[in-house]
Amino acid sequence: MDAVEVIRTKRDGGALSDAQIDWVVDAYTRGVVADEQMSALAMAILLRGMTDREIARWTSAMIASGERLDLSGVPRPTVDKHSTGGVGDKTTLPLTPLVAACGAAVPQLSGRGLGHTGGTLDKLESIPGWRAQLSNVEFIRQLASVGAVVCAAGEELAPADRKLYALRDVTGTVEAIPLIASSIMSKKIAEGTGALVLDVKVGSGAFMKGVADARTLGRTMVELGRAHGVRTVALLTDMSTPLGRAVGNAVEVAESVEVLAGGGPPDVVELTLRLAAEMLAAAGIRDADPAGVLRDGRAMDSWRRMIRAQGGDPDAPLPEAREHEVVRADAVGYVSAVDAYAVGVAAWRLGAGRARKEDAVSASAGVVLRKRPGDEVKAGEVLCELRTDDAGRIPAALSALDGAVSISAAPPEQRPLILERIA
Amino acid sequence: MDAVEVIRTKRDGGALSDAQIDWVVDAYTRGVVADEQMSALAMAILLRGMTDREIARWTSAMIASGERLDLSGVPRPTVDKHSTGGVGDKTTLPLTPLVAACGAAVPQLSGRGLGHTGGTLDKLESIPGWRAQLSNVEFIRQLASVGAVVCAAGEELAPADRKLYALRDVTGTVEAIPLIASSIMSKKIAEGTGALVLDVKVGSGAFMKGVADARTLGRTMVELGRAHGVRTVALLTDMSTPLGRAVGNAVEVAESVEVLAGGGPPDVVELTLRLAAEMLAAAGIRDADPAGVLRDGRAMDSWRRMIRAQGGDPDAPLPEAREHEVVRADAVGYVSAVDAYAVGVAAWRLGAGRARKEDAVSASAGVVLRKRPGDEVKAGEVLCELRTDDAGRIPAALSALDGAVSISAAPPEQRPLILERIA
Repeated sequence: MDAVEVIRTKRDGGALSDAQIDWVVDAYTRGVVADEQMSALAMAILLRGMTDREIARWTSAMIASGERLDLSGVPRPTVDKHSTGGVGDKTTLPLTPLVAACGAAVPQLSGRGLGHTGGTLDKLESIPGWRAQLSNVEFIRQLASVGAVVCAAGEELAPADRKLYALRDVTGTVEAIPLIASSIMSKKIAEGTGALVLDVKVGSGAFMKGVADARTLGRTMVELGRAHGVRTVALLTDMSTPLGRAVGNAVEVAESVEVLAGGGPPDVVELTLRLAAEMLAAAGIRDADPAGVLRDGRAMDSWRRMIRAQGGDPDAPLPEAREHEVVRADAVGYVSAVDAYAVGVAAWRLGAGRARKEDAVSASAGVVLRKRPGDEVKAGEVLCELRTDDAGRIPAALSALDGAVSISAAPPEQRPLILERIA
Repeated sequence: MDAVEVIRTKRDGGALSDAQIDWVVDAYTRGVVADEQMSALAMAILLRGMTDREIARWTSAMIASGERLDLSGVPRPTVDKHSTGGVGDKTTLPLTPLVAACGAAVPQLSGRGLGHTGGTLDKLESIPGWRAQLSNVEFIRQLASVGAVVCAAGEELAPADRKLYALRDVTGTVEAIPLIASSIMSKKIAEGTGALVLDVKVGSGAFMKGVADARTLGRTMVELGRAHGVRTVALLTDMSTPLGRAVGNAVEVAESVEVLAGGGPPDVVELTLRLAAEMLAAAGIRDADPAGVLRDGRAMDSWRRMIRAQGGDPDAPLPEAREHEVVRADAVGYVSAVDAYAVGVAAWRLGAGRARKEDAVSASAGVVLRKRPGDEVKAGEVLCELRTDDAGRIPAALSALDGAVSISAAPPEQRPLILERIA
């Protein structure tokens, strides 16, 4: 086998053979195929596409590059959720303990944020004492006892994907649907979950800007799950507006705790309950009442156990930003839109996200929306608050927010949050 | 500027701005843009193409990455020739001294062969004592005195191209017309020649397999030459059959000396005289008689001066291969075709070419055709000879030649050697 031959096949619009895929993924993981060869191949895949067979084989090869966890010893049905990434998407935080409180085990191996969408581990790390790193033994033990774990994926899980993901990030090849689908699914399948619910975000704040691409991605992933024996369902959900009011790390944890306490923004509650229902159905748990479990405090108890199990103090105060700034309305009327991408970039510029993998994030930085689409607004009222420890970051964040909030004379039509279901 | 932004622009089908091109070529040369980023961009260029403006700017940026030689001190008009590479294409060897003997100065900065087409420097290095490496001062001095120099391009000439060429070779991105055109033209323009004749090869033994691609490449390069003040003409010439009878290093030198002695295969003579006429016209020399100069020995005298000036002994015997093998006809009739690619691969496998830049080539290895298209042949007659110092290489070379020579009952139609002229 020869890397140039493999690259040429895809470049010229051909389909890679199973043997070519197995070889190139393995050789890349071992460093025999060089980064510059894999990036040329990734660009050819992005522009030429892949057949369903190629995507399935590519995913299998990435799984085979590392270990596949065995969760058969966990005495409950396992089910996981994955979001393709959105602004203010803290759903994993209330959802994981909620579904665990309903009788499933949720093995969330999660990533750190890169770019404007934030990462679940970064958010949880704003809780004093909480640690993301667990051994496989700790992970499985907590899954069996608490039923809920959110932790960092180990080095041995789909190492081919780990390497390829970092490469795609710097070579303009992130947006290839076959590579996105196989990256997500190889990690989730290797993690050993029995069922999976995918939240495919659509809109300005998501990777997929349009429904057609999101649908293709959702269908591709559902098919991949099925081919590997993982019951998989995908929801397409709106990401034109940030989810909830809080965008950042500690601010999103605080909003998640509100939801677990029975309050919180209606869209976060709606999405959490819908995803919980899908997860429980996929796990084969028929008689659960997630809304009741959220209302009566059992979900909150489950959250506290989950945080404590990883060293976190659920009662400790969350970090507060030293600097605040506000954006005020310059017109009267109704908020018709809040652009998710702009808010994501603003939070990122305030310090909530990282530009490079090695950067640290600020726990306290972020944006809190005081007005959401549909809200009435008077001239001079606060639209959103900016928080950061570094006042020098504020001007760039303000400029990202320029034009992000639209105000109209009449109330806007309400947009549905859940757009489609693919199973 | 950001490499990912530049890659995305081209990936999504946009045109790169002048500033993007200047930045990315310079940053790549300095190592700020990484190999894996440039290879992704090269693949995007291959699949998305470039406008004429982009190609012109890319070429300028590659020239600007190094020095541009000043040949204004040479007391004759300068004119160079470049071939896109063919099997048995030794034309540079008789042509350079011939055109010099007609009053022009030929500044041939040449490359080594990679793959099946062979390199001019490799061929000349089979002459005992001859050296390819000259300083800029030696180069210009020899150009002024002898009027003919074939030597290795210095490190300072279009270093961006040197780096990019090596990268394209291992990433399946050689075949992009914008990158081929800018690679050739940046080196030739930086070399300082006043005029240029391009021999664009078409056929199985060439990079361009079809006339349409070859025409696009020829037109692109003629336009680039004009834009940089270099009078440029391109000929499209047939490379479905090897040029002449000899394919290798020493064997091609021997055939070139036959041409300089007034003999040699008719196709080599025809192409040499036609290219000489084009070069002299482009150099503004109107009253030259290249056929006469070839006939009366002045071209041979010029060759001997050129070889001696670089330490070579034109009278020394050339290396002879230790092992010989022959391929015989299995039918009676006329040779209707000899596949250039197959013969090129056979010569390469015998040791005449290199697989990696760091490999050494064998001076004595090669293939000599005893029959060419149109020749009558009896069953059992020798079609071609294989030469090598390493008998172990013969089976692989024989297998490359399997089916390379076609024999038909009737004589084939003669194919024109020169297909088109672009000016």
